[in-house]
Formats: sequence, structure tokens, C-alpha cells
Amino acid sequence: MADIGYFTETNSVDTVNARMGADVDPRLSQVMATLVKHLHDFAREVQLTQDEWETAIGFLTRTGQICTQERQEFILLSDTLGLSMLVDAINNRRPEGATENTVFGPFHVEGAPVREMGAQICLDGKGESCLFLGRVLDLEGKPIEGARIDVWSDNADGYYDVQQPDIQPKWNNRGVFVTGADGHYSFIGIKPVSYPIPDDGPVGDMLAHLGRHPYRPAHMHYMVRAEGYQKLVTHTFVGGDAYLESDAVFGVKSTLVAPFDRLEDGDTLWRSEFDFILVRPDQSR
Amino acid sequence: MADIGYFTETNSVDTVNARMGADVDPRLSQVMATLVKHLHDFAREVQLTQDEWETAIGFLTRTGQICTQERQEFILLSDTLGLSMLVDAINNRRPEGATENTVFGPFHVEGAPVREMGAQICLDGKGESCLFLGRVLDLEGKPIEGARIDVWSDNADGYYDVQQPDIQPKWNNRGVFVTGADGHYSFIGIKPVSYPIPDDGPVGDMLAHLGRHPYRPAHMHYMVRAEGYQKLVTHTFVGGDAYLESDAVFGVKSTLVAPFDRLEDGDTLWRSEFDFILVRPDQSR
Ligand SMILES: [Fe+2]
Ligand SMILES: [Fe+2]
Repeated sequence: MADIGYFTETNSVDTVNARMGADVDPRLSQVMATLVKHLHDFAREVQLTQDEWETAIGFLTRTGQICTQERQEFILLSDTLGLSMLVDAINNRRPEGATENTVFGPFHVEGAPVREMGAQICLDGKGESCLFLGRVLDLEGKPIEGARIDVWSDNADGYYDVQQPDIQPKWNNRGVFVTGADGHYSFIGIKPVSYPIPDDGPVGDMLAHLGRHPYRPAHMHYMVRAEGYQKLVTHTFVGGDAYLESDAVFGVKSTLVAPFDRLEDGDTLWRSEFDFILVRPDQSR
Repeated sequence: MADIGYFTETNSVDTVNARMGADVDPRLSQVMATLVKHLHDFAREVQLTQDEWETAIGFLTRTGQICTQERQEFILLSDTLGLSMLVDAINNRRPEGATENTVFGPFHVEGAPVREMGAQICLDGKGESCLFLGRVLDLEGKPIEGARIDVWSDNADGYYDVQQPDIQPKWNNRGVFVTGADGHYSFIGIKPVSYPIPDDGPVGDMLAHLGRHPYRPAHMHYMVRAEGYQKLVTHTFVGGDAYLESDAVFGVKSTLVAPFDRLEDGDTLWRSEFDFILVRPDQSR
């Protein structure tokens, strides 16, 4: 008997999407209709079993329930499935020569202290001291004045200060630097170390089942904002890190791998130079 | 600069899936690789914005956090997106003439009392009394003896007993009936009423944004199990119900719409006859 108008295995996408009201926001309608299409196509393509569906329901439920003010397991899931990087890529297409974006990550804190150019950001005395320096330039190579460079990294034990509020000094390995007319920046931090993303929850279980490790290659986070330019959210990665080819969240881009040069003498052991090239809003690809 | 080996907007699916370990269970590997493909294709196809991604993260988090022992919002999400019915359809293909499956729903309770054939299951005295009857047959029309028919419906106010444990008698509108040699069954319940799925959470918000109502057309739930036959999980729907064409969870099939005939006299106001045709495990399409 023909199921005209009723849901069937073959008409499922159209039936669900036809149910949307006429006054629905067109963009929401487009996004949801496309989501339903891919969700159903996925289930059809793998011939999802009832048991697998139940496993998925349980996984998603645990993922939601472990979330707290300090922990966002769904972002971690998006990160480890490469979705976060894909969305970042889609929304930050830049011309050749411009510094590329990468994932923001969960550890930025707004309001870090603005420090003197060249200042020390490592407050716990741990780790291998590193001089970070470079310039903020436009695509034509002109220095950008007044760019705010917000930087943050883990400490020598692989933890951000917000992960160890009782142990680390507040604003440890964080700071904001504002460029002058020459576009130069510099500060002293530590050579960052690779660290695992939180892997004691559902996402960690998933990675284990997929035969994947939870590590990120060592990186320094940067957010660079300047009037009249696109916001740049990126990292520099420590060249030679063992996890460069297998970042758990797929954040590495070859243009973001920075030199970390060993210095011969002095208290500062390393030197990492990197220029940030910003683009204007109309310079997107 | 070529990003050989690193994640890019165009190689994202392959890069993520190449990360899986060699010893991963082949079925898990297939399911996850297909999931990643469709997830990325979705984001690419709609050119998902950063704001939309954040909205999705927030929605999924709220959906997980509202779940309790009594409430499963992710199942509700799967139901309202048609995924539950699709998985049910994929896993329960039956030949022409066999009774079709539909969604199990969250309100079944194992262990309902086995009652005498013809017994009353409505214990709160509410609603319009209805005689349910019919036969359990195999595909060749032969009666099946010893089939256990587990039935459950809402009460006249649209609530299952488990939704109102303080108000409704235990096992209200529930019962199990076992067929004799003639395959016949009968019991007295009420003509079920249409009811909204729980719509005070994220899924209710979603339906509202999509211009969809949360109602299900009135239905009686059945689970029929007999030795040597596939388990049948289904409903009969009340013919003529205003929501037949717009079931919030897409459970209606034309073959499951049952007659509800008004009786002329006696305490029982309605009569609904429906035969259940079971198939053996080897009779799947
Ligand atoms: Fe980080
Ligand atoms: Fe129901």
C-alpha cells in the first residue's frame, strides 16, 4: 500500500523537511533541511542498527552531562572530529601571504593584563625561557600600529592557569601587547609543551576506541586585533614537535609552524620569530 | 604553500579519517568515517558560520543537560528529526502483508500484568471505553498461539501512567494478553487521545523555531512477541485523528491506521479491530 504523505525509508528526508512551517527563517530552514538530509543519508549509508543508535544516544547524553562552566565536551567533540577546524577554515579564507587562522580553543581568558613590550609573561618560574618577537604587518608589508596581541600558552607542566587556579599565579603565561608605529612586538614566555586535551570523558573514550591519542603539539596562542583589519585567531607551533603530524584537534597548518632557535648564552634559552600578516575585511578570498 | 598532510578545508574528511588506528573495529571505523564525511559535507554545503556553530554547541549541551532518568531529550531530538523512524525502518523491513513497525517511544514499562482475554485495562475510569480485538497471524493467515501482546496507551488526559505516578493507578491503561490456539485477542481500554511530546526543553524550542507543533496523533501501543517470529513493535492509530498527517515524530504508516467504530449501545462506546501479522526471522525483505 502506498504511503502517500507518510514517512517511509525512501522519502524520509523530504517528509521531515516538508513539515517546516512557511514562516521559518530562510537560513534556519536551509541549515536544518541540509542537516536532516545528511543525518538520514548517514544512517542509510551505514545501515545504522538499533543498537548503534542507542549507543549514539548514550554517548551524546554523557557528552552533554559532563559539561560544566569549566568544561565543554561538545566543543571537544567538534574539535576531535575536525568540525571546529572546518568551520574556522570556511569562515576565514584569506589570500596567500596572510597569516592563517586556527582553532581558538577553550583556554582564552578575556582581560589579561596589557604588558610593556618585551615583558615576561611566565610567572611561575617553570619551563624553558623563550623570546617571542616579530611584527604585525598588512598584506603590503606595512607595519600596523596599535595592534593588540593577546597571547596565552600552557605552563611547563602542560596546563593553562585556568586549569590549575589553586596552583598557578593568575594570568600565568598570558598577556596583551600593543604595537607601536614600527609594528614590532616582543615578550618573554616559555617554549610551550605538548599536552593532552581532557580525555577522561566521552570524547577521550571515543579517541581510545578510534586508536587516537589525545595530544596537541606544543603551541603559543595568539589573538591579534587591529582597527580596520580582520581579527586573527591563531597559534604558532613549535617546529619539530612529535605531535605536529597528529594534532588531536587538527589545528596545525604548515605556515604556522614557527622556528624555535636555541640561544647560545643568557637566561633566555630560545628565540621564536614570527610575523603576523593581517588582512582588511574586503581582502577575504 | 602546500599543506601536505595537514588539515585543509578541502581535504578535511580524509585527514580526519586517516587518523584512525589500524586496529579499530572495522564496523566502528566504517560508521565513524561515514559520520565525519556527512558532518563535514553538511558544514561545507551550508557554509556554516561561527555563530551557527556556537548555537549548535549550546543546543546540544542543553539537550544533554536536561536528560534525567525520566526524560531522554536526545531520543526526542532523534524522533523529531525523523532519525528514529528511519533507523526503525532500516532494521525492520518486512514483506507485503506483514504488520509494519513503528517507534517504540519512551513510555513502555516491562512487567505489566498478564490479564484475562477481554479484560479492562483502564483503571482510572476516565475516557471513552473501547473494545480492541483481532488476531495474531502468520503471513499465511495461520493463527499464532502463545503470542504475548503487550499494550499501553495514554489516559483520557493525554498522559501515560508513568508521567503521573502520583495521580494515576499503577499499570493504568497497560496489560499483557496471551493468545490461545485461535490467535484471538481482545481487551477493553479507552479510545486514546492525541498528546504533545514534552515541549518545554530544547527540542520544544527547536520545533517552535521550525513552525512545527509537538502533537502525536492518538494511538495504542503494541509489542507482540511470539516464539519463532520477529518481535513487532507498533501502534494502531485512531483513524480520522487531526494529527495523522503531522505526527511530531513521523510514526504514522497508512497500514497502521485502524478503524474505530462507534457502537450503538452498551457501556463500550467504540470498537477497533486489527490483526497483527508476524513474520519469521527469515522473512525480512
Ligand atoms: Fe592550547
Ligand atoms: Fe505514545
